[in-house]
Amino acid sequence: MPMQRRLSVRTVDPLHVRLLRLLRDEGAVSRAELGDQLQMPRPRMLAELDRLVALGYVAEAGLAASRGGRRSTLVELNPKLRFAAVDLGASSMDIEVVNGRLEPVAHYGEAADIRNGPKVTLQRVNELLHKARVDGAYERLDAVGIGVPGPVSFRDGVPVSPPIMPGWDRYPVRELLSREHGCPAVVDNDVNIMAIGERHGGVAHSVDDFLFVKIGTGIGCGIYLTGEVYRGTDGCAGDIGHIQVDSHGPMCSCGNIGCLEALFSGAALAKDATAAARSGASPALAERMSLRGVVTALDVAEGAVEGDVTCIQLIRDGGRRVGGVLAGLVSFTNPSMIVIGGGLAQLGHILLAEIRSVVYRRSLPLATGNLPVVLSELGGRAGVAGAAVLASDVAFAEAA
Amino acid sequence: MPMQRRLSVRTVDPLHVRLLRLLRDEGAVSRAELGDQLQMPRPRMLAELDRLVALGYVAEAGLAASRGGRRSTLVELNPKLRFAAVDLGASSMDIEVVNGRLEPVAHYGEAADIRNGPKVTLQRVNELLHKARVDGAYERLDAVGIGVPGPVSFRDGVPVSPPIMPGWDRYPVRELLSREHGCPAVVDNDVNIMAIGERHGGVAHSVDDFLFVKIGTGIGCGIYLTGEVYRGTDGCAGDIGHIQVDSHGPMCSCGNIGCLEALFSGAALAKDATAAARSGASPALAERMSLRGVVTALDVAEGAVEGDVTCIQLIRDGGRRVGGVLAGLVSFTNPSMIVIGGGLAQLGHILLAEIRSVVYRRSLPLATGNLPVVLSELGGRAGVAGAAVLASDVAFAEAA
Repeated sequence: MPMQRRLSVRTVDPLHVRLLRLLRDEGAVSRAELGDQLQMPRPRMLAELDRLVALGYVAEAGLAASRGGRRSTLVELNPKLRFAAVDLGASSMDIEVVNGRLEPVAHYGEAADIRNGPKVTLQRVNELLHKARVDGAYERLDAVGIGVPGPVSFRDGVPVSPPIMPGWDRYPVRELLSREHGCPAVVDNDVNIMAIGERHGGVAHSVDDFLFVKIGTGIGCGIYLTGEVYRGTDGCAGDIGHIQVDSHGPMCSCGNIGCLEALFSGAALAKDATAAARSGASPALAERMSLRGVVTALDVAEGAVEGDVTCIQLIRDGGRRVGGVLAGLVSFTNPSMIVIGGGLAQLGHILLAEIRSVVYRRSLPLATGNLPVVLSELGGRAGVAGAAVLASDVAFAEAA
Repeated sequence: MPMQRRLSVRTVDPLHVRLLRLLRDEGAVSRAELGDQLQMPRPRMLAELDRLVALGYVAEAGLAASRGGRRSTLVELNPKLRFAAVDLGASSMDIEVVNGRLEPVAHYGEAADIRNGPKVTLQRVNELLHKARVDGAYERLDAVGIGVPGPVSFRDGVPVSPPIMPGWDRYPVRELLSREHGCPAVVDNDVNIMAIGERHGGVAHSVDDFLFVKIGTGIGCGIYLTGEVYRGTDGCAGDIGHIQVDSHGPMCSCGNIGCLEALFSGAALAKDATAAARSGASPALAERMSLRGVVTALDVAEGAVEGDVTCIQLIRDGGRRVGGVLAGLVSFTNPSMIVIGGGLAQLGHILLAEIRSVVYRRSLPLATGNLPVVLSELGGRAGVAGAAVLASDVAFAEAA
C-alpha cells in the first residue's frame, strides 16, 4: 500500500523578482518590451513596475525608439542601487561594490588569513566597505553577498564545521553583516559563488547542468543542476578534494589517505616542486629556488611554459588525478559542461589537455559526446561576480 | 558586464495534479479535508473536483464522519482507474496492473532476454497486458509506465545508446505503447523507477535527497535531488558501474579497465565464486558446484550465511569497492540517505556493514553525521512500484 507523504509543490519566482532580474541582466528596457519578455498581462506588469518605482528599485530612463504608435518609456534599475560582494579565500579577501547591473564601481583586495577568525576578518570587511562609502562608491548598500572557504548552511547563513576556518563554526555571519549594513545579506561557499559568477557572466552562461571545479590551495566543486546550485543536505556537496584517488597515497590533512587534495592542489604541488628543485630533477625549479628560497605552484607553471620536463610532468600527473575523479562524476551526473577555475587554472592548457584526455577516455561515450571541458572565463573575479549575483537576488526577493 | 541570459521560471504542479495525487496517496478524503490539505480557495477546489468527477477520474464515496455541522461527502479516485507498470530487466520482465491507489490487481513475471530486441520484447509485454484484460484486471488502461535497463531520453520516451540493449537505440517505445493501449505512456531507466518506487512507498518515502544504488547484473544509481529524479543532460546520470576503482583491475565489458562493475556485480561475483569453487578455497561453493555444475551470486550469499570464510570475504571485498565509490559520491552530493537495492542486496547485512564502514570512514564527518545507509524495503517490487507512480503521474498531468 502506498504510504502517506507530503505533496511537493514548487514555487515560481514572483513577478517582481523576474522583472528586476531582467533589468539587471539586460539594462534599460521599454515598458512595451518588458510585457513581451515576461509574458504577463500588461496591466499587472505595469502596476508592479509602478510599485517598484515607488519603492526606489526602478527608475524612468527616457523614451524608447518608436515601434510605430505611441513611444514607450524606458525603465532601468535605480542607478543608486549598490550591492557589496565579498570573496573570502583561505589567504585573501576580495571586495567589490557593484551597481544594479552588477558592474563594479569599487574594488579592494588584500592578503588575509581566514584563520584569524570571524571577528577580525569581518571587522576588516566592514572597514573596507566603510572606506568604499567614504570614497563615494555608495550612499547605502541594498544587500551584501559573501563567500567563505568552507561548508555553509545556506538557509541559516552560517558556516558549518569548516575544516580550515577555526572559530567560524555556526558564527552568525549573515546576521552580523545584515545588522552592520542595514540590508539583507547572504552567505555561501566560495566555490558555489564562483560557479554562480561563471553562470551569470562567464563561460557557463545559460548552461543549466555543469560542474565548476576549483583547483587552488584545496580542491572543490560547485554543482549546477537543472539551473540551480545544488548544495546538499548539510551544505557540503561538492567536497571532491577528499575523494580517495590512491589507497597507497600520502596522508591528507583530513586524516584519510590518498585524497585528491593531498596529491594535487596548490599545497601539494608546492611540496612536489620543492622536492624537484632540491633533487635537481628540474633545472627551472632549482634556479627559482636558489633565487628566492622557495618555489610555488606558479613556478611550476612558469617552468612548464619554458619547457622544463619535470614541471610539465608534475602538471600532467595532477591533471590525470583530477581527470580520474571528474570521469567518475561525469558518469554520475552527466553534466553538459565542466569549467576549471581557481588559482591552479593558471597551469593552463597542459592541465586542461590532461583532464580532458582522461575524462573523454574514462567516461561513457554518451555522456562525453558533447561535453566541453573549459577554463573559467572570469578567473580571479568569478567569486565576487557570483557574490554580487546572490546579493542582488536576495535584495530583489525582499522587494516585496 | 553581465551577459544576456534567459530567466528561469519554475512551474508549479497544477491543482488537478495535486488533487489526484492526494487521492492516490491517501485514499478516500472528504471534500472539507481536501480544501484544508491543498490550501486552496474552497470554491476553486470544488469546481475542479466536479470537473474531475465528470471526466471519470474521481468518484463519490459516501458521507464522511461529522466534524460538526453538515456532513461532508467523501471522494476517491474512480475505482475503475488502471495503470500498467512494466519493469524490463536484462533477463526478466515484471508487469503489474494497479488501481488508482497503485495497489496491484494483477501480476505477471517471467524470464526474458532484453537482447531479443524491442519488437519481440514489446510484443510479449502487450500479450501479457491483453491477457490481464481477458482475466478481468481492467477494462481500459489509463496509462502505461515502463522501465528499461539502459539510458533513456525521458523527454523523447526512447532508449539512447543503451549498451546491453542491441536494437533498442531510439526505438519509439513510448509512442508504440501509447498507440497500442490508447493511453499516455512513459519510459524511464530501470534504476530510476526503482528509486521512484522506494521514495513513494518504501524506505525513502518523504526523503528529498538520496541515492538508490542497484547492485545486480550491473551496477547503477538512481539520484533524487531536492525531491526530483535527476536524469542528467543525456539521461545517463547515475551510471556508476563504470567508475574506475582499480587502475590495475580486470578489463570491463565497456572496454575500460578496473570499472566497479567489472570487480563487483552479479556477473563478476559468479566468476569469482566459480574460481573459488574450482580451487577448493570455498567448501560451500565447491559443494554447490558439484551438485549443480554452476555457482551464482546467490550461492555466495547462502555460503556466507553458513559461515563459509571465502564467501564472506568475497562479499566484504565487493562491499569495500562499492563503499569506496559511494564515499566519493557522498562527498560530492551530500545526500540524506543511501538505499541499496537490486539482486545482490540479497547478500544482506555483511554487504551493508562493509559499505557503511567504508562510507563512514572515508567521507567528511559533516556529510555522514546523519546518513542512513539502508537496504531497499520494496526489494524486487521497487521497479514496478516506481513505474506505476510514473504512469499515474503522466495520466494525472493529462487530465486537463
